[in-house]
Amino acid sequence: MDKPAPVTAAMLAIGDELLSGRTKDKNIGHLAELLTAAGIELREVRIVGDEEDHIVSALNALRQGYDYVFTSGGIGPTHDDITADAVSRAFGVPCLYDDKAMALMAAHYQKRGVEFTEARKRMARMPQGAEHIDNPVSVAPGFVIGNVHVMAGVPSVFQAMLDNVMPTLRKGRQVLSRSIGCPLPEGDIGEPLRAVAQANTAVSIGSYPRFTDTGFANEIVVRGTEQSDVDAAIEAVQAMIDDLVARRAG
Amino acid sequence: MDKPAPVTAAMLAIGDELLSGRTKDKNIGHLAELLTAAGIELREVRIVGDEEDHIVSALNALRQGYDYVFTSGGIGPTHDDITADAVSRAFGVPCLYDDKAMALMAAHYQKRGVEFTEARKRMARMPQGAEHIDNPVSVAPGFVIGNVHVMAGVPSVFQAMLDNVMPTLRKGRQVLSRSIGCPLPEGDIGEPLRAVAQANTAVSIGSYPRFTDTGFANEIVVRGTEQSDVDAAIEAVQAMIDDLVARRAG
Repeated sequence: MDKPAPVTAAMLAIGDELLSGRTKDKNIGHLAELLTAAGIELREVRIVGDEEDHIVSALNALRQGYDYVFTSGGIGPTHDDITADAVSRAFGVPCLYDDKAMALMAAHYQKRGVEFTEARKRMARMPQGAEHIDNPVSVAPGFVIGNVHVMAGVPSVFQAMLDNVMPTLRKGRQVLSRSIGCPLPEGDIGEPLRAVAQANTAVSIGSYPRFTDTGFANEIVVRGTEQSDVDAAIEAVQAMIDDLVARRAG
Repeated sequence: MDKPAPVTAAMLAIGDELLSGRTKDKNIGHLAELLTAAGIELREVRIVGDEEDHIVSALNALRQGYDYVFTSGGIGPTHDDITADAVSRAFGVPCLYDDKAMALMAAHYQKRGVEFTEARKRMARMPQGAEHIDNPVSVAPGFVIGNVHVMAGVPSVFQAMLDNVMPTLRKGRQVLSRSIGCPLPEGDIGEPLRAVAQANTAVSIGSYPRFTDTGFANEIVVRGTEQSDVDAAIEAVQAMIDDLVARRAG
């Protein structure tokens, strides 16, 4: 059976507050986890500010380079929310008040006794031809045009929108992952681990050190699309570690 | 007195683990805070995996577009640490074992009774002509070549290296910031806030909603390089809020 082709993705996070340090992004890691679980390979992330030219050029680079693009931020009701305009310009279509979104939002605000201000109406604007991404948290929808999925920056809304997007995506090769805690520091295992990696080219092998209270801890992660390849590489890593530990003891 | 020119920066975070969701980046927000405090404008961030062609193309785009570039990740001892090679290729110079780094690290490991393995020696490799960034945590240095500052991905090491880099950077226009908590939702203030923004073009005005236990909270942030401009805009925002609140009560 032929393996399915890889499905690739990029993310564009939009907002001055991410670049000033005022807000620490929480959406990139969440998207990465869900895409990985779906076998979709997140290959690149960019963060840009609320500047239309910059959003347009980044978006055009990413949407031509990857199967899917996901954006966060800039779709609220205030003057610094310019993502709908930028996406429209990137696709060369007008940015219009969407009838269905206007009706949804008008009903929502009426029910709550809240005025449907001009600012709120701005959230119904999207590129001509875009489809809605439902927003169960605060109603104003995100949207999809071409391969670009435009979502809110507030994490709870981003996550709710993404939950609605995930079932619509083409699934890629499921990436299987196994890991081993390694009692030896990276500097001791670097060369033998390289030899294992070179002998197991069907998988990717990563080494991830981190500081703990008692010094460095190290984890070796093997990722691949075939269980037998992953298992064989993990066995080779384990044998390598056992051998090094035995030599130290000997 | 003329204002100093803006000083701009970009960041390139490198590592498969950031794109798989295994590791949540902690360096972008930290860099953003320190640059903002120094008046240096972080304009763009990219995250790419451990793939040399991709690192080279992203780095060449960023180093030509901004005054400074900061990278994180990929300078450890294992086979998936390829940042030094990629940066060398981007600059068109050989990647060499640096004599000073070799001497530093040899002395460090000898003192601790740790073997200076081929893997550890890899951490002394850097582009020909690069200068060290001292690493007080684990000795193996980062490096600077041209306008590119190459640092570790482990947050404690990244932060320690960045502390050594910050005093070497040209300072930009200090950005002053004031904020007001706003009792009204964004949808109510969007249009009047746009008018305030259009009347105060010397500053940038952002509106940042977030969910709380009791619904949306909203904060208006004014940023600019002149205290008088920031103060005038904050007064205008406050007057706008007071006016809207009075109308609601009236």
